[in-house]
Amino acid sequence: MQHILILGAGLSASSLIKYLLDHSEQYDWHIRLGDLSVETAQAKINNHPRGAAFYFDVNDENLCREEVKKADIVVSMLPASLHFKVARACVDFGKNMVTASYVSPQIEALNEEAKAKNVLILNEIGVDPGIDHMSAMQVIDRIKTLGGEITSFQSSTGGLVAPKYDNNPWNYKFTWNPRNVVLAGQGVSKFIRNGKYKYIPYHKLFKRIVRTEVLDYGEFEIYPNRDSLKYREIYGLDHIPSMFRGTMRRPGYSRSWNIFVQLGMTDDSFIIEDSENMTYREFVNSFLEYETKIPVETKLANYLGIEEESEIMYKLRWLDLFKPIKIGLKRATPAQILQHILLKKWVLDKEDKDMIVMQHRFEYTLKNQNKVILSSMAIEGTDQTHTAMSKTVGYPVAIACKLILTGKIKDVGVKLPLDASIYEPVLEELQSFGIQFIEEEIES
Amino acid sequence: MQHILILGAGLSASSLIKYLLDHSEQYDWHIRLGDLSVETAQAKINNHPRGAAFYFDVNDENLCREEVKKADIVVSMLPASLHFKVARACVDFGKNMVTASYVSPQIEALNEEAKAKNVLILNEIGVDPGIDHMSAMQVIDRIKTLGGEITSFQSSTGGLVAPKYDNNPWNYKFTWNPRNVVLAGQGVSKFIRNGKYKYIPYHKLFKRIVRTEVLDYGEFEIYPNRDSLKYREIYGLDHIPSMFRGTMRRPGYSRSWNIFVQLGMTDDSFIIEDSENMTYREFVNSFLEYETKIPVETKLANYLGIEEESEIMYKLRWLDLFKPIKIGLKRATPAQILQHILLKKWVLDKEDKDMIVMQHRFEYTLKNQNKVILSSMAIEGTDQTHTAMSKTVGYPVAIACKLILTGKIKDVGVKLPLDASIYEPVLEELQSFGIQFIEEEIES
Repeated sequence: MQHILILGAGLSASSLIKYLLDHSEQYDWHIRLGDLSVETAQAKINNHPRGAAFYFDVNDENLCREEVKKADIVVSMLPASLHFKVARACVDFGKNMVTASYVSPQIEALNEEAKAKNVLILNEIGVDPGIDHMSAMQVIDRIKTLGGEITSFQSSTGGLVAPKYDNNPWNYKFTWNPRNVVLAGQGVSKFIRNGKYKYIPYHKLFKRIVRTEVLDYGEFEIYPNRDSLKYREIYGLDHIPSMFRGTMRRPGYSRSWNIFVQLGMTDDSFIIEDSENMTYREFVNSFLEYETKIPVETKLANYLGIEEESEIMYKLRWLDLFKPIKIGLKRATPAQILQHILLKKWVLDKEDKDMIVMQHRFEYTLKNQNKVILSSMAIEGTDQTHTAMSKTVGYPVAIACKLILTGKIKDVGVKLPLDASIYEPVLEELQSFGIQFIEEEIES
Repeated sequence: MQHILILGAGLSASSLIKYLLDHSEQYDWHIRLGDLSVETAQAKINNHPRGAAFYFDVNDENLCREEVKKADIVVSMLPASLHFKVARACVDFGKNMVTASYVSPQIEALNEEAKAKNVLILNEIGVDPGIDHMSAMQVIDRIKTLGGEITSFQSSTGGLVAPKYDNNPWNYKFTWNPRNVVLAGQGVSKFIRNGKYKYIPYHKLFKRIVRTEVLDYGEFEIYPNRDSLKYREIYGLDHIPSMFRGTMRRPGYSRSWNIFVQLGMTDDSFIIEDSENMTYREFVNSFLEYETKIPVETKLANYLGIEEESEIMYKLRWLDLFKPIKIGLKRATPAQILQHILLKKWVLDKEDKDMIVMQHRFEYTLKNQNKVILSSMAIEGTDQTHTAMSKTVGYPVAIACKLILTGKIKDVGVKLPLDASIYEPVLEELQSFGIQFIEEEIES
């Protein structure tokens, strides 16, 4: 019998846990699921004969090391900043480990030690990062094998509400960590186009969008991600003239979101005075000039150069942003207040389902011909537990876990899923869950 | 004989050193001036019989403590972050100390210890902070004594080029630390008006200006400083409905500076790729959309919504911003590159003189009458050594030093110059150097 240790039983772990429990009989696995909330872990195990839930606190080092020692493989679904302690124990006890998070410099530094101990620490095998890496590398490797030269790579992902449930004026609901949505894009965004580096400051980001269509899902807009440049090296495209990564939203979202950015409402660096007793309307007004004779709505429209009867203003009114509703949050930052306001309106209803869309665009030359491949994926959630997010994060992790346990993946060291030995079998099996890329060759 | 130890012989210390040497015979002082550059210190002492220059490195703790031990008073003109080591030694050896810098939390924490040892650590007695505190408190205390209630306090300072030498289209030259000018205002600016808190994000700061006139010096514009709120407590105006502090520039400056902010050129948080080989023009273009058919100038004007034939564009062209001049700086941030470009154009010529302007506006009610006092000061530099900046920073420090040595200031503990016992004699003597506030009572 092989022992799988899963750390973290949150929403993103649901599909992962289900997959491993569903296959536990077939492969003779036993699964231990640890979480700060034993109830959450128990609910996910749901009395499965091959599963056990237990209380887990990563800060209890003895507990962490004891559990890792007993396992054959460790899956960490903890918040990204907590992976290192687990990785440290895995290397010490010679256990393989899988995570869906970005590899940290701390974990990267374990590479040589992991190799020496014959241990694989496989990171970034969720959806973004994860499926994006694997699906991109599959096409990149194929084009290179054919002798083609890639001149441009664009890749975008979006977590959205599925079309059937897409019924608010923003065409957006929180399907994932709301805080990350509010803070998205802060800093500078970098990419390269035809050999020219481009830098976009945060306050211009949501005006620098591009448009695309994805399969039968219609139109999306894309705003640039923070650092597109580092992917050149990761994907072995060091000298590619154009590289761009972005986030997808439905058309019109960015123009309206930009209002919050322009006002300063996404700032998480300072506390709003007496935020508890302030109203939504006063919150808006605190970013506008002092002028008591002009309504807040008019001041905002004039300040930001939009028409008061525009669709943007309608979206803001729909959020109750101009209403005298008490905020009620003590010592809150603007970003926390904005999140609080949005959470009341952008919540998924019980029946709502989410959706993940991803699209790559490869431009390359082959035998002196310019070619363009568009590779697109869209998947909707099954229910509020097995959301598209949970499935796309969890299945790749679970499949990788199986491939390691069954000896199909034999890598060692600190790795990303960039090699065919990993991405081929994972992408192959993901298709059975409806996670499938459709390729179109289009006019260049 | 009393021994004065001055640490730091930089530009800002020139007038201070001159004052103390000029009065050294009269008061029987001996002055030791320490600097990392002995040559600089020697030049400032200029063979004065009562002065001595020596090599001083604040990181040499033994040296620092030895020198402090020998002194009767210590004046630290070192960079603000280095004052603490000196203050620590002053408290240990029971020596008084004077600085022109903002008091740090570390130094503030020495308060009780300093009191117990009968030591005065007097901070923020330069120009801004310094003369601003003293000149404001003088009026505030007077209004309070008369029984008036202050309802609004606005205070602004500017370091500019004197009118006679103000001959470039920006009406601005670097008269002080250029890096601080480039980074000015980053973060959020906070103030309060009629009881309403107002927050301005950095990218809107240079559009939220107000105008004023100062004496015979004509018109200035004011952009808000970072934190106006903390001054309510410092000035004993905790419940004042309106409090605003700002920075003065000549009209038109902010609108043009805003272009750099909007493009992202003042960002100091990331490195521009291959900055060394980039040209000014390419630097500008890196913040604009990829589009090879439209000239950079047109792209910029369209992007930021200004007319190509506007005065703003003229100011940018005057800086050579669109010329193919090599930057030549390795691994530079946008802010470093911008500073490099500006330094070539905003430099003070040999004959140029600088100017400091400061203006307070007090609104108050007295016997049911609303009143407004405008209190303004302007001083020009004497030459490139005794600049307005050097005089306004140095003379208050020097005068305070004299007042402590002669027993006129008897305070102990970590202090700011907010009490009449300090500000009255300092402001009185500053008048003899032409640093004088003119009050006007104006219509409310």
